[in-house]
Amino acid sequence: MNIKNYLSVNIERVNSVLDELLVEENHYPENISNAVRYSVFAGGKRIRPLLSIAASECLGINPERFIRFGAAIELIHTYTLIHDDLPCIDNDDYRRGKKTCHKVFGEALAVLAGDALQTCAFEVFSQSIEAENINPKNQLNALWEFTRAIGIDGTIGGQVVDIESEGKEMTASTLEYIHDKKTGALILFSVKLPALLEGSNEKSLKALSLFGEKIGLAFQVVDDILDITGNEKTLGKTPGKDEKSKKLTYPSLYGIEKSREIADTLYGEAVNALDMFGNNANNLKSIAELIVKRNS
Amino acid sequence: MNIKNYLSVNIERVNSVLDELLVEENHYPENISNAVRYSVFAGGKRIRPLLSIAASECLGINPERFIRFGAAIELIHTYTLIHDDLPCIDNDDYRRGKKTCHKVFGEALAVLAGDALQTCAFEVFSQSIEAENINPKNQLNALWEFTRAIGIDGTIGGQVVDIESEGKEMTASTLEYIHDKKTGALILFSVKLPALLEGSNEKSLKALSLFGEKIGLAFQVVDDILDITGNEKTLGKTPGKDEKSKKLTYPSLYGIEKSREIADTLYGEAVNALDMFGNNANNLKSIAELIVKRNS
Repeated sequence: MNIKNYLSVNIERVNSVLDELLVEENHYPENISNAVRYSVFAGGKRIRPLLSIAASECLGINPERFIRFGAAIELIHTYTLIHDDLPCIDNDDYRRGKKTCHKVFGEALAVLAGDALQTCAFEVFSQSIEAENINPKNQLNALWEFTRAIGIDGTIGGQVVDIESEGKEMTASTLEYIHDKKTGALILFSVKLPALLEGSNEKSLKALSLFGEKIGLAFQVVDDILDITGNEKTLGKTPGKDEKSKKLTYPSLYGIEKSREIADTLYGEAVNALDMFGNNANNLKSIAELIVKRNS
Repeated sequence: MNIKNYLSVNIERVNSVLDELLVEENHYPENISNAVRYSVFAGGKRIRPLLSIAASECLGINPERFIRFGAAIELIHTYTLIHDDLPCIDNDDYRRGKKTCHKVFGEALAVLAGDALQTCAFEVFSQSIEAENINPKNQLNALWEFTRAIGIDGTIGGQVVDIESEGKEMTASTLEYIHDKKTGALILFSVKLPALLEGSNEKSLKALSLFGEKIGLAFQVVDDILDITGNEKTLGKTPGKDEKSKKLTYPSLYGIEKSREIADTLYGEAVNALDMFGNNANNLKSIAELIVKRNS
């Protein structure tokens, strides 16, 4: 299968799992059920679940076995987007070219929809399904790493520092903290997830972790570049927002050319980390390439 | 130990466990760490962890063994209060006589502090501690029930219907839904928790569940009564809010006298459900009495 087909087949799979994990449309109370579904299905590249799927392949694990856990990461990602878009935080009216949750359902529902998606992600992680044959200790350990990735020392901490840095002088180490925590931590977790659930050996976990760190940072560097070079149509959001808000970014620190070099170097290091998996890593490498070469 | 001493000793224990579970004061990024600590330690009767402790006693389990799980329920309770108080939801400036989280730290931080407390509660539930000797399958099962209690079919659903019902004609069955989900589900879970973690027999679980259902509803009926009869000083919040917002409550449906009778009947049914535990249930019964007889 070429990578384009591979991606579309797997995005379809992820979407179908998300559909099963979420409360049905119009489930009482209707507005909250419809709000969570609206935001989860308002586009999205499903990069995190795709990373989990391809990382499963590296380990020789049938990706179907852990796919619901990867989908749960997407639920968390969506919850953070809903809350970030709120008027009291980033105040964004559009996301991926569609109206944001609070623009459609109101602020109160948007707060609660984000809350519900976080809860739902953990509900997925709490379930034991016999056919998956996961050691419950490994499942608890994966859950623990999940909570660490998205808490105050992870996504939330990164978001707080991002908010507090706006319009202020920022050091390179603060920028690194934001990237590492706000985006990096959850991408890293997506890549490690199958190894954690399977209880893989230290060497595999280390290789995947190194890949995850590098590609997580590359993702954010490219994001910063696209905010300058992208246009509204491909981005699905307003470009130039970082510059307008005086946000520190890789391009603002190092210039666009140098930032592209940094992204390329990170990509190279990420791919090299996967050597031990041989051809099993081909799809994960292709996803890494897409992350670095993407234009939206 | 008389019940007053019993309660103050155990509240102290719960507070000390909460202190350990939470990120330290001034942990970077300082504002979010301080915001979660501020809200968790801004008073609170710790009823949910106390119910878990006393339910452990019913089962002959040393309450210390599961105390961190009960404390995690308090983290969830606090997160729901922070988000409920937000301007876009209940818009409350005071809670338990202190300024609400968003009044002190701003709305963005309050949204994120609630998010972080939810994550932290699940972090607690993901940890395995050898001395507790919990079967990991039981731990996952308890976690699953936890997520069910606070999701769209639990606390969040109750809150949504509560918000959407304001100022509208409401049926008794809607009122029941709100009480059952918004407050009842988490109180019920607090009581069941030790039985779930221990993997207790069906009969014990059923008895505790019946108690939890009855006392959860009684709690809310008394809350409604206090909103009318209480004063600002003992309540720590503005009384009469329900009436002003035309909220349907037990007193508005049945009158105060009849509501008191309902609460007393529920209390009697709750206490009777504990018969099989003999004297081991004494503290749980005392807590039930306090819930029904409280004046704040």
